[in-house]
Order: sequence, then structure tokens, then C-alpha cells
Amino acid sequence: MPGSSFGEAFRVATFGESHGGGVGVIVEGVTPGLPLAEGEIQQQLDRRKPGQSAVTTSRAEQDEVHILSGVFEGQATGTPLMMVLYNKDMRPEAYREIKDLFRPGHADFTYLKKYGLRDHRGAGRASGRETAGRVAAGAVAMKQLDQRGVHIIAYTKRAAGIECAAVDLDQIEKNPMRAADARAAEKMVEAVTALARQGESTGGIVECVVRGVAPGLGEPVFDKLDARLAQGMLSLGAVKGIEFGTGFDCVDMGGSHHNDWMNKNGFLTNHAGGILGGLSNGNDIVFRIAVKPTSSVSVPQETVDIHNNETPIVTEGRHDPCICPRIVPVVEGMTALVLEDLYKRQAALHG
Amino acid sequence: MPGSSFGEAFRVATFGESHGGGVGVIVEGVTPGLPLAEGEIQQQLDRRKPGQSAVTTSRAEQDEVHILSGVFEGQATGTPLMMVLYNKDMRPEAYREIKDLFRPGHADFTYLKKYGLRDHRGAGRASGRETAGRVAAGAVAMKQLDQRGVHIIAYTKRAAGIECAAVDLDQIEKNPMRAADARAAEKMVEAVTALARQGESTGGIVECVVRGVAPGLGEPVFDKLDARLAQGMLSLGAVKGIEFGTGFDCVDMGGSHHNDWMNKNGFLTNHAGGILGGLSNGNDIVFRIAVKPTSSVSVPQETVDIHNNETPIVTEGRHDPCICPRIVPVVEGMTALVLEDLYKRQAALHG
Amino acid sequence: MPGSSFGEAFRVATFGESHGGGVGVIVEGVTPGLPLAEGEIQQQLDRRKPGQSAVTTSRAEQDEVHILSGVFEGQATGTPLMMVLYNKDMRPEAYREIKDLFRPGHADFTYLKKYGLRDHRGAGRASGRETAGRVAAGAVAMKQLDQRGVHIIAYTKRAAGIECAAVDLDQIEKNPMRAADARAAEKMVEAVTALARQGESTGGIVECVVRGVAPGLGEPVFDKLDARLAQGMLSLGAVKGIEFGTGFDCVDMGGSHHNDWMNKNGFLTNHAGGILGGLSNGNDIVFRIAVKPTSSVSVPQETVDIHNNETPIVTEGRHDPCICPRIVPVVEGMTALVLEDLYKRQAALHG
Amino acid sequence: MPGSSFGEAFRVATFGESHGGGVGVIVEGVTPGLPLAEGEIQQQLDRRKPGQSAVTTSRAEQDEVHILSGVFEGQATGTPLMMVLYNKDMRPEAYREIKDLFRPGHADFTYLKKYGLRDHRGAGRASGRETAGRVAAGAVAMKQLDQRGVHIIAYTKRAAGIECAAVDLDQIEKNPMRAADARAAEKMVEAVTALARQGESTGGIVECVVRGVAPGLGEPVFDKLDARLAQGMLSLGAVKGIEFGTGFDCVDMGGSHHNDWMNKNGFLTNHAGGILGGLSNGNDIVFRIAVKPTSSVSVPQETVDIHNNETPIVTEGRHDPCICPRIVPVVEGMTALVLEDLYKRQAALHG
Repeated sequence: MPGSSFGEAFRVATFGESHGGGVGVIVEGVTPGLPLAEGEIQQQLDRRKPGQSAVTTSRAEQDEVHILSGVFEGQATGTPLMMVLYNKDMRPEAYREIKDLFRPGHADFTYLKKYGLRDHRGAGRASGRETAGRVAAGAVAMKQLDQRGVHIIAYTKRAAGIECAAVDLDQIEKNPMRAADARAAEKMVEAVTALARQGESTGGIVECVVRGVAPGLGEPVFDKLDARLAQGMLSLGAVKGIEFGTGFDCVDMGGSHHNDWMNKNGFLTNHAGGILGGLSNGNDIVFRIAVKPTSSVSVPQETVDIHNNETPIVTEGRHDPCICPRIVPVVEGMTALVLEDLYKRQAALHG
Repeated sequence: MPGSSFGEAFRVATFGESHGGGVGVIVEGVTPGLPLAEGEIQQQLDRRKPGQSAVTTSRAEQDEVHILSGVFEGQATGTPLMMVLYNKDMRPEAYREIKDLFRPGHADFTYLKKYGLRDHRGAGRASGRETAGRVAAGAVAMKQLDQRGVHIIAYTKRAAGIECAAVDLDQIEKNPMRAADARAAEKMVEAVTALARQGESTGGIVECVVRGVAPGLGEPVFDKLDARLAQGMLSLGAVKGIEFGTGFDCVDMGGSHHNDWMNKNGFLTNHAGGILGGLSNGNDIVFRIAVKPTSSVSVPQETVDIHNNETPIVTEGRHDPCICPRIVPVVEGMTALVLEDLYKRQAALHG
Repeated sequence: MPGSSFGEAFRVATFGESHGGGVGVIVEGVTPGLPLAEGEIQQQLDRRKPGQSAVTTSRAEQDEVHILSGVFEGQATGTPLMMVLYNKDMRPEAYREIKDLFRPGHADFTYLKKYGLRDHRGAGRASGRETAGRVAAGAVAMKQLDQRGVHIIAYTKRAAGIECAAVDLDQIEKNPMRAADARAAEKMVEAVTALARQGESTGGIVECVVRGVAPGLGEPVFDKLDARLAQGMLSLGAVKGIEFGTGFDCVDMGGSHHNDWMNKNGFLTNHAGGILGGLSNGNDIVFRIAVKPTSSVSVPQETVDIHNNETPIVTEGRHDPCICPRIVPVVEGMTALVLEDLYKRQAALHG
Repeated sequence: MPGSSFGEAFRVATFGESHGGGVGVIVEGVTPGLPLAEGEIQQQLDRRKPGQSAVTTSRAEQDEVHILSGVFEGQATGTPLMMVLYNKDMRPEAYREIKDLFRPGHADFTYLKKYGLRDHRGAGRASGRETAGRVAAGAVAMKQLDQRGVHIIAYTKRAAGIECAAVDLDQIEKNPMRAADARAAEKMVEAVTALARQGESTGGIVECVVRGVAPGLGEPVFDKLDARLAQGMLSLGAVKGIEFGTGFDCVDMGGSHHNDWMNKNGFLTNHAGGILGGLSNGNDIVFRIAVKPTSSVSVPQETVDIHNNETPIVTEGRHDPCICPRIVPVVEGMTALVLEDLYKRQAALHG
């Protein structure tokens, strides 16, 4: 009933706060025999970790993963896989000054209201750092999905008002924005760094494409493939919307134009984003998420403290001017968690 | 693990196919003592039922609800509440002709791939008729939410390319589109009926506003309020996207502009749509969903049959040219299911 | 979170009260394509239904099962299978007199304390009639288990102080006690009918043997095979204990004697009852449950009413002097629910 | 779907193998604000840890608990509480010799069959060491239950064939057997050490009494209080049976004698063990479990290896001749997990 678990057959439970002992995850349901090594998981974590470039925060966490259980002689045993990243670069004192303030755009106010108390150090449980556990678990899921012939690719489609004109997947890991268009990426970096200098932030759109999913994946009716992906994506702190295929643009179309017709070679179009009736249809699964501008900015803002006194606030510290490049591996990891779970549930249905 | 259940503390399990014995729902976790009568539930079902106007299907189901358990002398007992709507206006023979065809935009193809067989009568389990169970359960949730001071209102914001210029909640139930603007509604009806005459369909945008939710509702991290609403909405067959508050428009904003500042009277704006860090912040909860154009159209389309033979198809029958007016009560009901569940989970956390 | 659901991959949710509209069950996760007909399910229900013989209650429910969804043209579709038994022989007025009394041994007192109100007609939700849903769902599970080569047999091992001297499975359905020994059965019938004449009741021991389960079934650590069977059995109202294999008698044995040694043909003994470390070991799974004497007796007892006034009570009505023969099919059904769920979970693990 | 999680509203997920990096637990749903310190949890773990006396194994684990998340400034934050015990006294080489043998009474054979591979070091996941996580989580639950006025006491009632003649709770922690009778304890120690000298082991009966639970706790019908306790107890590796109140002895009683009559001061007897219809009735909750003789003995036994070659086996190493004294705190902890979960579920029902 509490909300830190996700999945049924491939199940993750994350734990950890930004400035506590560490963050991590238990993964249940890993296929026994799956080859697993910390190095592969570390690769994905390195894509999420802070300090990668000028467009990401300078916090210096190494995010080194440790496997404490569930792997024996290089293979998953099928028992709970526990992975932890100990917190190292903790500066709780940096948060002392603002511990009684509700930072605009942050969960300070709502966490206090929900729990009656809160760990104010670096957003505590509400920190983006929580997603490291998902990336680690997602790396495990990806390993298995790779054997299923499934591949997940996300990239920054738009940031700071600049949109990719083309989609070249080879470019994604070559630019600090993880954009799919080299020239757009350059402009994004320029715009984002300019905003960063002003202490301002920006948002963007991340697109995710999944290839190789055979038709029929998903669990009607509440755990439809799109329903679970939507839950997974909206469970990321910075995400404010999601759309599949043609998305919001479908609303003005006629049904006969939006419907993806079929011929003997398959679907003629992909307006549906690869999902029909909540089940994969064999097309690429395509969705986009709206990433809000980072809440932490150093321009002066107005807020109140826990005693409801009005006060100006300037959030100093090490923050990402645009979270898109770092959210890309999180989107991929979260997508992998959704897919791997549904694959195993499909196996159970017919098993 | 199968997907026909939703919620943890207030839990629904729906069942039923379009042309089988009936559709319905078991609701677990209803607060004992809640006054309940079939009449109140029927009211919500009547808003969803077919045949309400020229812009909805002419299928003649009365959708009469029967409570089989969980209520005693007018009160919920706290034990499973079972509600069933027997199917009456079944014309399975109407589907015989197309039983081997994959109707474009429908789940025919994907259901067959998932299950290896399918009930072809009127989309079977994939029928929108399944949502009647959710509306019935949602009516129960609303009854309880009303006692909590929570009110949910959804309406058609856009349909057939026409958008409400104003929002007047009093108008919603006064026009067949359930639009919040009388003049826009008139134009919508005109446009939708024109499309219907051509055998074409259209989509729209439905907006939902929830008032009266105190701050702190939601379960970090996977069951955030927005994550669960997103799952719930995308679990509706016709929905292709969701956005909260400013939604996709937030992506080009600066953080200091998107953040909702506070003063001693509360938040100055509501860009976040009432949700911060996945928890309600006391503002109105606001989200919009993209409703796709109805897949069933009677203009000729191309498809294949189960033997992969190409064939033209014309979907005759009784269909909604625009599903928006009938999805409005479903959106409200589904929202109620999400909220009531999270209220009870909050009670458990502190209980 | 409420407790009327059981299982994860093969999941049942029961509903219904003794004297409401009916009792029934939704079964999720039925393997698509499984041949299913009401007749086969009815057969199991007939073994549980009242009025079978002099040693069972004379309540005249026909317990006729109706499938409302999830079956199409004689096959399970894989979508929720809904089965309902409408209540017919309801005599709520029979309970009016005792509606404010706490019947000794019944759940009247505790249900009122839990829920704050209760359906007093025939024990309401606490009625043994709830188990009809389990038997129906269990019949579906058995159909699938049969294809897996798994067979479940339960029988009365002891009743009214008389114990089977031998185990002859062919005898079980030939005597009204469902005992595995014809001569013991005769004596049991005699003893039970004598007790019934005095208005007294008795209990017994039911043993269950499962054959054909391959080694490795169960989910460490909380959903071990024995843990789930224990939950399932203790969830039956009349059951007060369970033991596996040698059971309580193992406590005085030495480890080297209790351990089941192996040679190349398998285990030499079966003290463990077919379960090692919570997983099936390929031996017969063997457990016994303690069935308490039926609470409803017509000898005078002492109790209080809801106002805490002391009062004598004589429970008239139609009751089973010994529930053993009717609990036998329930034990089999519940065992089937446990096993089928674990089979599907095993498929998910490796899937 | 995998089985390492337990509970719904107060939910634990354990991880860890005997000789991997460590064992531990994530606890979700801890009431925010609950005062928590490692010291209190350590106290319970110290009661379970090896090496306490001559009647327990000499393995030298200190079982030192570390809280990594979920506690801030001495209070539970309501977010996942993660506790880990790093493994220290690992001697994997001790297991090399028997790594291909199926030790009688152990899960070696069944784990290999289930998973296709296994961590052979000290029973891996099947090790009793896994229960340390439950004891740690149970200590947290107990802290909360203490505030509810609920107290759990377990003790060895019988071991090596010697039964307590009296029940004196003050004696439990004063003797190495955790027996409730000082004189019986002395004899037990004598008998157990004599068996240990011969390389043999023995079992026993542990009784658990819970005081202070108000009437109405439990979730009909599958999560009845006794059903969940039974699941919890049978999920302990050494437990082969459970009985409530009068237990198996009730089977020969008449209903009017087994029923606990009431007068205005409450129940006159407690044959039911404090549970009616699966709900607490306000009486002490009383149950007993059958603890099997420890499987590891150093007398020669017969078994096969993974290639099905027959071979004698002598399990050397550091083992408990009787697990009763160390299982007592595990029974208490597991009981606490069951109760605290049901308390929170009750809060949800009425919340």
C-alpha cells in the first residue's frame, strides 16, 4: 500500500534519501541464470549521475553500485537482488539555511503535510536521486529485454524551446543534451548554459521509442501497456504529461485518418504509437513526456516558511539547469521496468 | 497480476464483455456504514449509458445496476460490494460478418495476439462497456469523497476542433457534448453530427478539475497522485495522452515562472495542477486528456483478416461519432477511484 | 488490502453473503483456451452443497452456478471469469429473533466490532456459504492442474472421535462422511447422527494429499508452498490448525530420523509432507487440518446481546452436525487455488 | 509475485543470502514520527543471533544492524526504512565439499529444481539467516504495537520431549532455552546438550501469546488473523504445523463445549485462541507451532549428489541442536509484522 514498489512479476522496491546512508533497490523476479555484473549496471548509472557536463549539476556523487544479494558466480539466482549506492558527497549543512522554507516547485510543503515531518536535506525522499535505484533495476531489466530482442531508446526532443529537426539515434550519446540532432543539440547547450548563467532553468520534451516488442503485451484493463508506462513516467518528479503516438494532435483528426490501417505487411502508419487497446501491436512503441523546468533556480522567488511567514528565497546549490539529459536514462530504465514486468505477466497468463 | 483490478485499500475488480452475460464490478474496502442505494449509482450510469442524444450511439442498453452483496439495510457493510449490469441489447449476429477482420483502430488484432483467441462480439472485453463497472464503483467512491469535501468535475474542453472559450460548470449537463461553454457546445454538436452523417468520427480534450483535496494526498514514489491518475486515465481505451496543470506548455518556461510561488494565503498560481512531488498541494487538481477519434467509422478503410488477406472494411453499427460526452462520467468515476484509494492509504499510513 | 482476494497470477475475489442476492467469484488469470463448462463446475459445487445426506444441513440451496463472463464458445478467454450462485432458499426471518445475540462460536461479536454494523442474516459474509465461490474457482484451477498431471484428494480422516484405520481413496465418495475407510465411515455416521439428535455437534480431521507436483513449486520466503496452503486452510472458518507430513509428531524426533534421506530413486520417506524449504520436493504433498465442532448447536448455551445483557441461547435452524464431509471439496478447491497460482508464478519467474 | 514481500499496509521485503554481502529488509508504511534507534532493533536481533549459549550454533555473526534510510533525527519519516546486516563470519570454503550434495532435510534439492542454479554457501537464501531481516522489521512493528497496548510473548513450551509444567513468563529470558518453566528448562538444556554431543538434533513446540488486541482485527476472508499468522509461521523454514487455542484437541469436542460462552464480563473460556471468524475477539491470541528437529546433524546420513550418485553425508559445521530458543524472537517478530499490517488495514477500512 505504500508506494515505493512497482511491478508484480518483476518487482522493484526502492529506498533512500538524498543525504541519508544511501539509495538503492531490491529487485524481485529476476530470471535465474541471467548473467549480471556490477559493471553493466554501473554503465547505466553513469549516464544518470551528476557532474557529467556543463549542463548538469556539479554534485560529485560517483554513484557506485554494490550488489549485496541475488547474484552468485556472475548469475542472477532468482532470489531478491539488492543493489545499493552509498551517499558520499553529502552536504547537509548546505540545506540548514532553508530547512524551514518551502522551496517553490519542490515537494517541501506537500511532504510536510503528508508525513507531518520531513528530511529536509536535499529534498530527502523526493530527491531525483531516488531514481538511481530505478536506473540500476532498469539496467537489469534491459539485460533481459535485450535477450527478448527489445531495445529502448530515449532522447531529448526539445529543450529550452529548441526542437530536434531530425532524429539521428547515433547522435544521442555524443552530445551533453542527449538530443537526437547534433545541430539542435549545439543550440540547446548554448541556450541552457545561458539560462544557467542567469540562475534560470528550462524544461523540454523527451521522446522514447521501443523496438522489438511483439504484439499482445499489456494487461487489460487497468494495466494496459500505455497505462503502466504513463504511471511509470508520471512517477518521475519532473514529468507533467505524456502522450502516445500522435498524442494530443489526434484530437482533431477523423477516425478513419487516425486509425492505422493494415495490409498484409502490417500497419501502414503508427498514429497509435504501437499500442492498440492497451496492448502492443508490433509497431514501435512511441511516447513523449513533458519535462518541467528544474524547480531549483537562483533567481529570487517568493515563498513562506513553515510558520507561514512570507520570505524571499534564492536556491543556491548545485542544480541542473535542464534535467532532460539526465532524465533520458531514467526514462529508459523505467520503461524497461514496465516492459519486463509485463513480459513475465504474459508468461504467467499462458504458463 | 492480471490487470482487471485497481486500487489497494479501495479496490475494484471489473468483469464482463460487451455481449456476454453482463458487466460489473466488485468493490472492496467501502467504508462500513456508508449509505448506499442503487438509485444513486444508477444516476452516474445513466450519464454514461448509450442512446442519450444524437451525438451518442443508439445502442439501447438500459444499464440497470443490481447490487448483489455488501449492502444491508441501506448501508455498506464493509464486505465486498458486488454490482452487475446484465447485458440486454445484444446483437452478436451483427458482428458475425466482421468476426475474422481486424477493425482498424480496435483491439481485435492485439487481443488475438495476446490471448490466442477472442470474443469477437462487440469488442468483447475491450469494449467501452467495461467502463460501466468503473462508473458504478466510482459512484460509490464519490459518495465517500463527498463526505470528505472533495468534488470532481470533468467536461469536454474541445471536440471536433472546437474549443470552449469559457468555463461555465453549470452548462456541462445542459448540453449533449458535456461542454463547459454553451456556445461552443452548439458548434460542437453541429460539427459532430455533420461528421456522423459522413460516417466519420472525431476526438477531443476532456478536462477534469478536483476541488477540496487537502494537501499531502498521494504515495511516493510510484503511486504519486499524478502517476495513479495517469494510469487510470490511460487505462481508458480512447485516451492517448494526459497533462497536468500547464502541461506540455511548461517545457519552454523558466523554472522561476513555472514554480508556483507562495504567500501567506497560499499558492499564487497553479501551474503544477495542484500536485507537487506527486502529492496534492491543496490547489485544484487539474488535468486534461486527449481523447482519440472513435475508431468505428463507416467510411471505407483497409485492413486484413485473421488469415492476413487484405480486405476493405466498413464498420456499420451503432457507434459514437465523438466519445467525449460519454467519457466525461467515466473520467470522473476513475478519478474518484484513484482518490478514494489514496485517502484510505493515507489513513493506513498514519493509522 | 481488504481480504477477499487471493492469489497473484491466478487470482480470485469472492463476494456475497448468506442471505443477500448471491455469492460468487471473479477469477483472473485463467489460461486462455482452457475448455470450461458450467457442468464441470457444478459437479464440484454439488459436493459442497447443503442437503446431501443426514449428516449435513437440510438447507435446500441448489447452488446453481452461472458464468457471466470470461468464457466464449466453451473456452476461457483469459479475461475475468465471473461466476455467481443466486441465493434462493433465504429465510432471513429465521434470524430475526437472534439478530441482537452473539451466537457462541460464531463471528457475530467480532464482525460487529470490526465493521460497526453487520448483516445478521445467517452469518452474512462469515457464512460458510462464501466458500461456494472458492469451490467454483477451485474447479477451474483443478481443470488446469489436471492438464499439469496434478491431482488433489481430501477426505475425512477422523470425526466424532473415530479415526480411519485404513486409507482407501475409492471409498471417499461412497459414504456421506467422505471418509477413506468404509467401516470407520459407518461408525462416524452413527456417532454424528446420535450427536445431531441431541442437538450437539462434533469436529474432525481432514487430510489432503496432492499427487503429481514436480519439485520446485513455491515462492520463498513468505509464499512458500506450505505457508500459502496454511493461509488458505486457516482462511476457512472452521479450521483451527494445520500440520504437514509428520506434523506435530516431529517435535520429539531426532533430525537424522526426521530428515527424508535420498537414494537414486528419490526420497526414502516422506516425513516432510512433500515440502522442503517451502518448495515441493516431488513427493506427495500431505497435510491435515483440525476442523472444529460446528458452532451452531441446539443445546442451550449462555451468551450476551449487543447491549451486553446476559441471555441463554438455543440456535435452532438447519445446521451441519459435522462439517467434515462438506469441507472436503472446499479443502480441495482451496488447495487447487494455491497450486495453480504458484504454477503461474513459477512460469513468470522463468518467463 | 515473487515471495520475498509480506504485508500490505505495513510491508516488508527481505533480501540476502547466508554468505553473500548481507541480509536485510525494507519496511514500508512505518508510521511517520515513530521514534526509532538502531539500539532497540539491535536488542531483538541479539536475541536471535548465533553464539548465545551452549544450545545454539557457535557461528560468530554479530548481526549489527545499520539503518540506511527512512529515519531522520531519531524518527521514522514514513518513507522506506532500509536496514542491513553485513555478513562477516563467512566461511564459504566450509561448504565447498558439500556443494554438490543434497543435504537431507535442507532445501538444496528443491532450490536447485526451482531456480536451475543455487548459491550453495550455507543454504543461501534458504538459510535461517534470512529471518534476521524479519526480526529487525518486527522490532519496528513491536515499537508501534507497544503504543497500541499490544504485547507479544513467545516461549519454548516443549523441547527434546520435555514440556513446561507451568508457564512463568519471567523465566523465559533467564534460561538458554527460552522456556517458560525454569525446571523444565534445566532438563531441556541437559537433553539438548546430550543430543548435541551425539551430533543429533531435536525439535519442539513454541507457544505465542498476544495480549491487548482489541476485538475486530483481521481481514475476512483470506486475510483472517489466523490465516495470516499461519502463513507467517509456516513461512519459517523449521515450522511444520500451527494450531490456535485448543487446536487439534478441539476435533473430538462437542460444539457446545468448544464454543466460548459469553457473559457480561466477556468470554468464559478461550478455546478459540482469541480468534472468532478470523477476527480477534479481545481474548489473548494463543497459538502453538511445531518446530522440526534441526536438519543439520553430524550423524551419518544417506543422500545423493546433483548427478544422482548415492553418497553418505556427515554435515559438519556450526549448527543449533535445537532451534527453539532462537526461533522465539523470530516468532514474535513475525507475529508483530502480521498484527501491525492488520492494524493499518483496519485504519484504511474506516479511514
